[in-house]
Amino acid sequence: MSKSHAGKRVLVTMGDLCGIGPEIVAMALGHPQAGMAAQLCVVGDAAVMRRAMAWAGVQRPLLRLSSLDELENLPPHSVALWQPEGLPQGLLDCAIGQIAAKAGAAAAHCVEAAVAAIQAGAADALVTAPIHKEALHAAGIGYPGHTEMLQALAALDGAPAPVRMMLANNELRTVLVTIHCSLRKAIELINVDSVLETLRIAQAAMLKFGIAAPRIAVAGLNPHAGEGGLFGDEEILHIAPAIALARAEGIAASGPFAPDTVFMRARNAAGHPGEFDVVVAMTHDHGLIPVKYLGVEQGVNVTLGLPFVRTSPDHGTAFDLAGSGRADASSLRAALNMACELLP
Amino acid sequence: MSKSHAGKRVLVTMGDLCGIGPEIVAMALGHPQAGMAAQLCVVGDAAVMRRAMAWAGVQRPLLRLSSLDELENLPPHSVALWQPEGLPQGLLDCAIGQIAAKAGAAAAHCVEAAVAAIQAGAADALVTAPIHKEALHAAGIGYPGHTEMLQALAALDGAPAPVRMMLANNELRTVLVTIHCSLRKAIELINVDSVLETLRIAQAAMLKFGIAAPRIAVAGLNPHAGEGGLFGDEEILHIAPAIALARAEGIAASGPFAPDTVFMRARNAAGHPGEFDVVVAMTHDHGLIPVKYLGVEQGVNVTLGLPFVRTSPDHGTAFDLAGSGRADASSLRAALNMACELLP
Repeated sequence: MSKSHAGKRVLVTMGDLCGIGPEIVAMALGHPQAGMAAQLCVVGDAAVMRRAMAWAGVQRPLLRLSSLDELENLPPHSVALWQPEGLPQGLLDCAIGQIAAKAGAAAAHCVEAAVAAIQAGAADALVTAPIHKEALHAAGIGYPGHTEMLQALAALDGAPAPVRMMLANNELRTVLVTIHCSLRKAIELINVDSVLETLRIAQAAMLKFGIAAPRIAVAGLNPHAGEGGLFGDEEILHIAPAIALARAEGIAASGPFAPDTVFMRARNAAGHPGEFDVVVAMTHDHGLIPVKYLGVEQGVNVTLGLPFVRTSPDHGTAFDLAGSGRADASSLRAALNMACELLP
Repeated sequence: MSKSHAGKRVLVTMGDLCGIGPEIVAMALGHPQAGMAAQLCVVGDAAVMRRAMAWAGVQRPLLRLSSLDELENLPPHSVALWQPEGLPQGLLDCAIGQIAAKAGAAAAHCVEAAVAAIQAGAADALVTAPIHKEALHAAGIGYPGHTEMLQALAALDGAPAPVRMMLANNELRTVLVTIHCSLRKAIELINVDSVLETLRIAQAAMLKFGIAAPRIAVAGLNPHAGEGGLFGDEEILHIAPAIALARAEGIAASGPFAPDTVFMRARNAAGHPGEFDVVVAMTHDHGLIPVKYLGVEQGVNVTLGLPFVRTSPDHGTAFDLAGSGRADASSLRAALNMACELLP
């Protein structure tokens, strides 16, 4: 909390322009929280962001940079924008609240450009506004989401970075073994290696968060964590052996626990001290249902295992709210805060 | 709430005697809530219940009935017990906090006897304390849980009753399409018929709860409810068609919705009116994680679709707490209340 981020640069991509991304970015950067010392810069299309600032009622000027180095001398109370070369033309023609291939292509292009800038040393961290997976798909982009795209962009010598999605709010953190695939496919992806790698990544992340001896709970895959093999054997074949190997490495992992109660046990709230610092979950929804249950306003998605800091809000494009100026930027603000917190 | 249950008989099985079942039954029946007009009777072993009452600090006398009709003339401030014929001998020899075949056999026998009494017209409703599925298994009993056992016991002309598990607390209700099986098997069990039957059962239950026009949300199976087919096709092939058929029958079902946000949307709390009266979930843990997240103390399990009322607490045997007298009977009390609420 006390760390200084002055001079650190955080890039914020606008997301799918047919959703609420540009608006919440306009809100968060147009009315930044007091004490936010990092330099913030939108990566997006100038016309789209001007429209979004109007919808969001943001009066500050939008300053289009020709280089990220201009962030050093930005006038106060302005919103900085970097529009990468090669964005599709005519983006304002995309219908708000609809899937558009052009919007998907633009969203992906902003992420790619932002990662390239970070890799070139021109910025330090990435915060992404929501994209729409079907729009990406319509644009011929084969990634189901940000996490997979970032994993590929951060590949070293062709090997994808071993990344995992973490979701966190004020009372619960969860790291997911599998994410954006069918539940059938997720079950196939659970093995000793994938669980052990998740435990190592979760351990490293908790240390980064300043937790000296992280208590890591592992949720099972099956009801009652398999009930001793009666309801599935993934706990016996894959999850328990991975926990044993992690413990041999000095990681304080325990489980596998019944999925339906482990999140309740980890919940850290007033009068309810959590038993664990983080829960490793086997599937997207086992982990995300409890993080989102009390509201998505404070939830933050963190990509662990990348060579740079990346966070995002834990909600989607909310097509039904886009253009209304009524979207809630709380989760994006929380994502900005967490990105600053994790800055090296 | 205002309905009179005077003269109605509610049977409460003791559960697995190696767990907290006998203790919480002793607490709930030894200190019943004011205004509980129904006649309550433990179904269990007299020696086990005497020991549990001592652990729980219950001073009232335990009256062993020779017939349930004696409930009509019970002395005040006593705890009634009906010990069915044929319970295993020497139950006090079972080690507390351990799986014991004899305890599993005794727990199952109490449930069977209670159902037989209800079917014979000698009682009106059943509340069950937790059993342990591995103990049942050790006793050679092939049911993974109460719900499946009750389904078989209530079979008419050999056809199992079409039952579903509902979990409810003060802010959320969920009805499950699949329950006690591996996640792989659960996916195989999802089809138009199983989802449609669940919707019909959920609709009937909500009407019984006094909700005139129930709003039923249906959670998908896959992340993002399949993201338009990118992450699995069960939503397209099975779930959406079942919703359409239910709507054609006049059931206000909607979805399939992304599992990670539909429970948050349905949550009905102060300042957060729920969008739905009940959520139909495809898997055990999709439904139970959010119901249990804020604590199991108020959660109640209701078996829908049986020819009689049956409820239970939504926690397990808690072997680690058994014998300590420190278990929390809140969920069992809530289950007793809900059973009375649902009495015909």
